[in-house]
Formats: sequence, structure tokens, C-alpha cells
Amino acid sequence: MTTIETTVLANINSPQDVKKLSLEEMNILAGEIRKGILNRVNLVGGHLGPDLGIVEATIAMHYVFNSPVDKFIFDVSHQCYPHKMLTGRKDGFLNPLEHPEISGYSNQNESEHDHFMIGHTSTSVTLATGVAKARDLKGENYNVIALIGDGSLTGGEAMEGLNNASVLGSNFIIIVNDNEMSIAENHGGLYEHLKELRESNGTCANNWFKAFGFDYIYVEQGNDIQTLINAFNQVKNIDHPVVVHIHTLKGKGYEPAEKDKEPWHWSVPGFLDKSENSNGGEMPECYETLTNNYLLEKIKRDKTVIPICAGTPGVFWWNKEYRDKLGENYTDVGIAEQHAVGYASGLARNGAKPVFAVMTSFIQRAYDQLSQDLALNNSPATILVYWGGISGADCTHLGLFDIPLIANIPNIVYLAPSCKEEYLRMLDWSIEQTQYSVAIRVPTFNYVSTGVEDKTDYSILNKYSLVEKGSKVAIIGLGDFFELGKSVKEELKSKLNINASLINPKFITGVDSELLDGLKADHEIVITLENGTLDGGFGEKIARYYGNSGMKVLNYGANKEFNDRVPLDELLQRYHLTKELIADDVAKLL
Amino acid sequence: MTTIETTVLANINSPQDVKKLSLEEMNILAGEIRKGILNRVNLVGGHLGPDLGIVEATIAMHYVFNSPVDKFIFDVSHQCYPHKMLTGRKDGFLNPLEHPEISGYSNQNESEHDHFMIGHTSTSVTLATGVAKARDLKGENYNVIALIGDGSLTGGEAMEGLNNASVLGSNFIIIVNDNEMSIAENHGGLYEHLKELRESNGTCANNWFKAFGFDYIYVEQGNDIQTLINAFNQVKNIDHPVVVHIHTLKGKGYEPAEKDKEPWHWSVPGFLDKSENSNGGEMPECYETLTNNYLLEKIKRDKTVIPICAGTPGVFWWNKEYRDKLGENYTDVGIAEQHAVGYASGLARNGAKPVFAVMTSFIQRAYDQLSQDLALNNSPATILVYWGGISGADCTHLGLFDIPLIANIPNIVYLAPSCKEEYLRMLDWSIEQTQYSVAIRVPTFNYVSTGVEDKTDYSILNKYSLVEKGSKVAIIGLGDFFELGKSVKEELKSKLNINASLINPKFITGVDSELLDGLKADHEIVITLENGTLDGGFGEKIARYYGNSGMKVLNYGANKEFNDRVPLDELLQRYHLTKELIADDVAKLL
Repeated sequence: MTTIETTVLANINSPQDVKKLSLEEMNILAGEIRKGILNRVNLVGGHLGPDLGIVEATIAMHYVFNSPVDKFIFDVSHQCYPHKMLTGRKDGFLNPLEHPEISGYSNQNESEHDHFMIGHTSTSVTLATGVAKARDLKGENYNVIALIGDGSLTGGEAMEGLNNASVLGSNFIIIVNDNEMSIAENHGGLYEHLKELRESNGTCANNWFKAFGFDYIYVEQGNDIQTLINAFNQVKNIDHPVVVHIHTLKGKGYEPAEKDKEPWHWSVPGFLDKSENSNGGEMPECYETLTNNYLLEKIKRDKTVIPICAGTPGVFWWNKEYRDKLGENYTDVGIAEQHAVGYASGLARNGAKPVFAVMTSFIQRAYDQLSQDLALNNSPATILVYWGGISGADCTHLGLFDIPLIANIPNIVYLAPSCKEEYLRMLDWSIEQTQYSVAIRVPTFNYVSTGVEDKTDYSILNKYSLVEKGSKVAIIGLGDFFELGKSVKEELKSKLNINASLINPKFITGVDSELLDGLKADHEIVITLENGTLDGGFGEKIARYYGNSGMKVLNYGANKEFNDRVPLDELLQRYHLTKELIADDVAKLL
Repeated sequence: MTTIETTVLANINSPQDVKKLSLEEMNILAGEIRKGILNRVNLVGGHLGPDLGIVEATIAMHYVFNSPVDKFIFDVSHQCYPHKMLTGRKDGFLNPLEHPEISGYSNQNESEHDHFMIGHTSTSVTLATGVAKARDLKGENYNVIALIGDGSLTGGEAMEGLNNASVLGSNFIIIVNDNEMSIAENHGGLYEHLKELRESNGTCANNWFKAFGFDYIYVEQGNDIQTLINAFNQVKNIDHPVVVHIHTLKGKGYEPAEKDKEPWHWSVPGFLDKSENSNGGEMPECYETLTNNYLLEKIKRDKTVIPICAGTPGVFWWNKEYRDKLGENYTDVGIAEQHAVGYASGLARNGAKPVFAVMTSFIQRAYDQLSQDLALNNSPATILVYWGGISGADCTHLGLFDIPLIANIPNIVYLAPSCKEEYLRMLDWSIEQTQYSVAIRVPTFNYVSTGVEDKTDYSILNKYSLVEKGSKVAIIGLGDFFELGKSVKEELKSKLNINASLINPKFITGVDSELLDGLKADHEIVITLENGTLDGGFGEKIARYYGNSGMKVLNYGANKEFNDRVPLDELLQRYHLTKELIADDVAKLL
């Protein structure tokens, strides 16, 4: 936990200081920035490979251009660490005590050199197009530079942006940082083409960027500062849109990350001592291993089962070895969530059994496809939604909004298992049934195994499970908050001598009117617990249902807000998501 | 209202019948299909130009391929009428009595020759990729053909689909129907490129489709049946993905539509007698004209105000003449809603004043951009959401879901004006303020002018207006259902002698706790009225708020369901959205 000592970086307090450096000093600076990246990621985790690869380009950008007058807009922010170090935020990398002050993402609240909060892919070209158009309308004059990685290029918003950026008719510079990788390997025809461009030094036929209407420059030596300075000087103050395609080495300067790029894209802390990335370590039993073992077994017997992801296989522990076992049944569509959902619908309508695994934060990219491509067609695909729930995450990666997003679309059956046995039963039911579009909210808060096989027939929709019948108060604990429901029940018993009913609803998308009506006889209060935002969520459906009755309903979940790295315990207190606070609320109401 | 007589089409009951025709008969058939299109659109309205342009290609497709074994997947369905006529549904075009039986969109419930319900753009390549992959997994052998128009190509899902379709490694045929038009003119670099391709007979440098990895054929004579048959025969049973780029004439065979393509993309009924499209007629005062006059005046004084649309200017009455007046301040991004929202965010963050006009049904394409690009950054852009509300529309174009979609995103201020004066005040406030991302739900149900200037300060968020203070029952009428609220108030007075309170909430995104708490003193029932789906909507927030009190809450709005051309009155009855039914409900509860 000591501060990293530097010689050149120590004196860089703004981009102006970069401009005074000699090439030799800039090369030293590159090494010191890499130390800073390794130091920070080793202590708090973060994006390692992409940041190590973009060090030289960032130095050259700040040497040539004049930030913040010239505006750099970073895609997905996986490559913004060097930029942060050169724009007054080096202590967030060099000094362990300062690490928490600096976000891992582009953040305009930190610095005038950042222009947006960004954590989702494929947005930089689009955002920058707006920035450039505003510049033109105001009659201003400076460079607008969008940086985008090859992996992000295939996201719909990026390509939509390219189509419009190319006809801006004014200064617009796109730096395509081609490190030959998405998070995992790239997928799709465009990547064959980028390979051709690299191998032909940018001269091959059918240049995709030129077809869009861009001027184009290829830079093979994307980790050579002088070469990059020359290239950027060539496009500085250009009067039309241009793509500068630079070839960089992901993980450069840290041998394990250079050799094995995928596991080092993002790293958990504590790798430097052992020089191995614990991302790839032994897997304990958990929802990821359950899913993966299940799918592998299933595919052996049924060649139409097809696991799909959109560029983030590591999130589901679908490492290279696992993907190879899935073989042709596996599809990584790349960063393309809209396509993933529509593709799943096409597969399902033609008799295959797609299982699209996706993070809550990224299924947001595909609302319309969930609605129009999937649900409207009742396509029997399965969507596994991971990482939903309240957490101390960065504001760009919150898992709070999937219930309002998915559960209010007609036809979709959104299921919330509370334990291993329910999850496996739901998963198998979903894959084998042919009537419904199904999503399953994979629990994140806890891993529970009851040891009791679940034999529920999930084709009987919206049938809640009354686990324990009590009176006065009923607790509906959704999904991974069923465990919280159990503890609230105990608390109500011990503190208030209330023998509460306990309900496991399992279905997010509908109301069990028979069960809810039954509670009216001997209950006064119904409590709902959900691991997500209250607005538009599950609990509100219960509140609405009881609106015409005397039943009091207390909904617990997250407020509608973007929290940025707020500690989980603080959030649980704020939202009254503890057994003690809930029991207090009940006591006040009785 | 007479049935159209045909000679060749009369004997076409399935695609098998097309295969028996001579070229001469097919040319007669083309003319008869055009008569059917004109007949139907003249009587019930519909997509005219794109369907007239695709007649020959559809005949050739059915002549060469073997539907439904070979699978045709139509993008957006703007060009599916000829297909419907050749697949057993000609009476829906020839016989006025049968018109309502046949949807204007691809619909698998109508025919085994349709494989999806489709009404949003840019999905065909993606859906077809799934269909083809399922075919391959099952070891089946047939052609999968996706048809897509040039205007739809730039939608993110289409380009994501192209990237993955090109590496399928098996039979996959994309017919790009290039009629040189989106709904209006095309926008973006890709369209310069398509022009180059057309002008070079497909031989120009930097072929965009080849860059993606597709084989490619260009067909200049896209309205010549024999040429098309030859081209399709060339790709039939191909063992890899290929693009067949055909150049067609939008509106072909109906002179007014050939000459002036934009107003004839879609037509209201009743044009044949006068040979002019009443889409372009005199505009009565309405929210569209209010908006357009306002924006035009605003731009004269402020060059940073920039109206944006995503390929559907006609919806907002932004015709060619109006767009010319907006000049460089106008941006049509093409079919690219994600980009539109991100672009607006970029503009707003750099000091411009973007106003993105969009239909409820299409803002669905941009949930993640609303959340991450816009709201997370508090970018002060204005989104005008048109056509929200319950209607007898096709299931693909329902305006029911925008409130759950938008109102549950943190930071966004979603406003619901109930009259002209509020709308103009909100619009001006939104454009001039710099703190919030704002959406305004443009009323559709009625056009009301109170004649009283609205002087509300909308920067005081979530402040509802208590229009009339009564007791016992309070009615909260949101946006264009405020008028319904007024009539419910009168009904309660006359039927039940209740002097109800009447509230105009104006803000969809938050709860006025002071006002709601105040109602507890002398009210027993709160009624909410919203012109959209209840699930995840406005009313549920009120129900949740009152959950811990004795207040009864009755939420009125649409059920969570995809209705397909259900008459409006039937829906209003079903949802109890009449003053009589609501008064009955209240009477039962008292």
C-alpha cells in the first residue's frame, strides 16, 4: 500500500505539461503510467488490458491536441486510465489512499477533460457527433475526437453514429483503437475485414470506413509515440470526418496480459504477487456453474439448445475452454444486444432453443427487441438476466432497472427463483416449453440450496407459493430477497410476536389474485421485498392490486436514483432493507 | 366499394400458382397487384409507395423460391402487400369487405408464409439470422431470405445483424430493396455510398456489403421480372451469405407517387378520386402545428435550437417545405433512434438545445440511450413523445408503453400537458433550462385550449395542480386524460352527489407528497387516469405512495397486453375508461 514514485508523471498536472516533454521523457512517462495502471488494478480491480494498450496513444493525443478545448470522448471508458493520469488525476492510480476518489469510468464530475459519464459501449461516436454539431451551430472551432475500440464498433449505436458522423461536413476525428479483441475474441464479418485492413496496412479493397464516407488513415505502430504524434498531427484541425485506425497491443507491457488477453481484460485485485489472474480460478458452486453444467449436459442430448452472449462471456464464466465444449451451439454475437434478442427470437420461432445470457445493465440495450421481436411473437426463447440487484457498483453498471424494463412488457414471463432448485426447474421448463418468451432473474444476493427438488409446473403462470401461513402481516420476498423475507418474519416474531405469512412469488410479471385475495381475511399489512428499483417494479403491482381494499402495502426496494459507488450497507440502510428497519416500520403502522 | 376484377391474380391461391405463369402473365399479374394495392390503400389507408415498388421483386421471389419451405422475412412490413396477395390473402386487397381481415403488416397468424409479426424497422436480417442458424442446427436445407429497404439499413439492429449474418457460413440471402428513399429522403454516409453503387452498376470501390463479408450482386432493373428471376436463380440454394442489391422505383405504376415519393409513402384513404394525397393538406391547429410554429420562431432567435427526428418527419408534419425552413438546424438521423438520443445528449452537453421528436412506439428503440447517454448525464435535451395512448392501432404500433419505459429512469423529467397552454409553457421551459433531461408526452386524445396562459414554473418538480378542491373522492387525470377526469367529476356529482377534487398532475415522473398527504384529511378514494398501460405506469406510483395509509386507490389505464386493431371504444369499455363505469366502481366502493 505504498505510493508509486515517478519521475516524469510526478510533474504532469495537466495536459499542458505533456506538451513540454521530449520523446524520451514521453517514453519514460508511458512506463510510469503502466505502473500506475497495474498498481491501481492490483489494489481495487479494473480494466487492465485495454488501458495498458492505449498508453502511447493517450500521450500522443494530449501532446498533439489541446484538451479540454479539443474534446476527447471515450467509448465505454475501458481505456480512460492513462487519460485520467494526464489530466490531474494521477493520484487515483499512484496513491492507494486516493484510489476510491477516482472512478474507473469517464466522469465529468471529476474533470473538465471528461465530457460524459460513460460505461456502456458503442456510444462515443454518437455523443461526439452531437458535440461537434453543437460546435458548428455555435460557430466554434476545435477538434472533436471520439475514441472507440474495435470490439465496440459492432454495437448498433456505434454504426448508427458512423453513418451520421461521416456527413457532418466539419472537423471530426475517430480514433479506432484496434487491439484485435473485444472483451473476448471478436465475432462477425467486420472483424475479418479489420484483419484485412491490418494485414494490408490499410490498403485492402472495400474499406468499410471509406464506404461510410470517411477519410481514413491506418497506423500500424499504434504503440509508438512518435508515429502516433505524426498521425494525429496529420488530422489535427482537419475540416472533414476522418478515421484514424490504430493497431495496438492489448495488455502491452505486462507479459501475462499480453500473452492471454481475455482474462486480463478486467482483473480482480491482488494479482501482482502471483502473476495470475484469479478471474480464471477454481469455480465454487454458484448460479454460474449450475447454468453452465446444465447447458453442457443439455446440449449433449439436444443439438438445438444454443447459448448466446453479446460480447461478455466472462461474466457467465464462459471461458475459452467452456466455449470450445459448446462448439457450434455457442454464439457470441459481439457487442450487439439488439441483435442477440432478435436472433434468439428467430432461432426460437424456427424450433431451436436459445438461451441468451446477459447482464441487467446491458439488456437495457434491447427493450424494443424484447417487446417487438420476442414477446409480440411469443418466441419461446430464454433470457438469463445476471447481476440484477442493489450494489455498490459504478453508476453506469447498476442492476436496478431490469424489472421495470422487462416485467411491464406483455407476454413475457419473468421468473425470480429464490434458490438453486427453483432456478434449475425454471431453466429446464423455460427451455423445453414452446408457448412463452421467458426471462429468469439469476439471483445475485445469495446462493441458497434447499436440498428439496422443485416440482412446480411453471406453465401455470403467476402462481405464488405460500410458504408459511400466518396472519396479520404477509411478507412477499421476491427472488433473492426471499431470504430477507425469512429474516423479517423471524424479526416480526421475536420483536412484535407476529406470526407473519411468508410468500415466494416466483413470478415477477403477474399477480396471484387468488392468493392475494385470500390474505384479506386475516392480514392487515402486506410487505413486498424486491432487489431492484421500486418505480415500475414488482411491489407496485401488489400495491395497485390492493388499492381498492383496506390492505396496507409496504413496498421495499431501491429508490429511483443513479448511485455511484455507494457502499451496499449504506444503500440497504437508506432503503430500509434490513429486518430491523422493516420491523420498526410495521410496528409504527400497527 | 366494388370488388376489383382480375384475370391472373384471380387464379393465384398460393405461390405454387405463380410458378405456372408465363412472363407475360406475370407482367399482367404485376398490374393487377398494383390495382389491389391502390384499392386497399384508397379504402383503409396504408403503405403505398414501398408496396408499389416491390411488386415485380415479390413475383420473382415466389417464382424462384419455394415459400413457406424457403422463408421470406420482411423488414418493417412496409412492402408485404404483394406477398400477401400471392399467399392466399388477395381478398384483403381486392374485396373491400375483406380488407379489415388482413393486417397491414407481416403476421404469422394470417399465413404460414409469414414468420413473424413485424412493424418496426431494421429487424429482418437479425430475425432471419436466427431462422437460418436454427435450420443449420437441425440439419435442414432451404433458403432463408431477408428483405430490407435501403431506409432501414442504418438502424442499429440491421447493422448488428449484417455483421453476424455474414459469418453464418451457410445459405443466407439478403435482398436490399433500394428505392432511394427512406420514408422521407435518406440521411447519412451510407446513402452516398448506395448512390455510388447504383451509378457504378455495383462496381464502385469500397463496397460496404463486401466489407462486411458478403458476396454481392447488383440488379439495376429492380422492376423487371425476368431480370429479377435470373438474379434470384443465381443465388438460390447458395451455400454462403449473399446480398442482392436491387434498384426499384418507389411508387411505381401510380404517377403521383412516382413523382412525389415522400407524401405517398403512406396514405390516408380516399385519394383516388382526387389524385392528391390528403396527408399534405391544410393543417388545422393541433399539437403538431403548435410545435412547428414554436420551433420555427425559436430558431429565428436562437441558432442552437435543433429539431431532430429519426426517419419519420411526416409524423410531426415536418414536410419538405418546413424542413427547408429549419435549414441546417434540422437533423434527420435516419432510422437510428439510439443515435438520435445520444446525439441529442452530445448537443445538449455542448450547449445546444436539441428537440428530438419521436413516436411512442419507436422511442422504445432507445431505452439505454435515454438512461445512460442522456439521463445519467443530466443532459438538458427535450424529447417530444407523440402518439402515446390507447388506440385501435396494429399490435406493432401501440402507444402504451412509454410511461413505464421513460418514467422509471432516474433524473428524467417526464411531463404530461393537458392543454395547449401547458404544452407551450413546458416546451419553452424545457428548451431553455439546463438542469434536466426532459420528455414531454404530446397529447393525442383531444386538443384543448383553455385560453388561459400557463405561468407554472416547471423547475419546481413534481408539483401537481389541485384544480378543484372537493372531498371524499380525488381524481388525478394525467395529461390528455385530464378531460376524462373532468367528466368523471361531473358524473360523480350528478350520480352520487359527490363533490370530488380534481387534480392535474403534469409530472409523470414523481409524486407530490404534500398534495397527496393533504388529501388524507377528507378523501377516501383517489382515482388515477392515464392514457397508457397500468403496469409500471403513473397510477402505480400513487398506489404505492398510499400503501401505508387507509386511502383507497383506483388506477385506470390499459391492461398489459398487445392488442391488434381492437376498436378504441371496445378498449375503453374493457378498461373501464368511461365516466359511467368509473362512477359505478366508486359507488360499489363507498
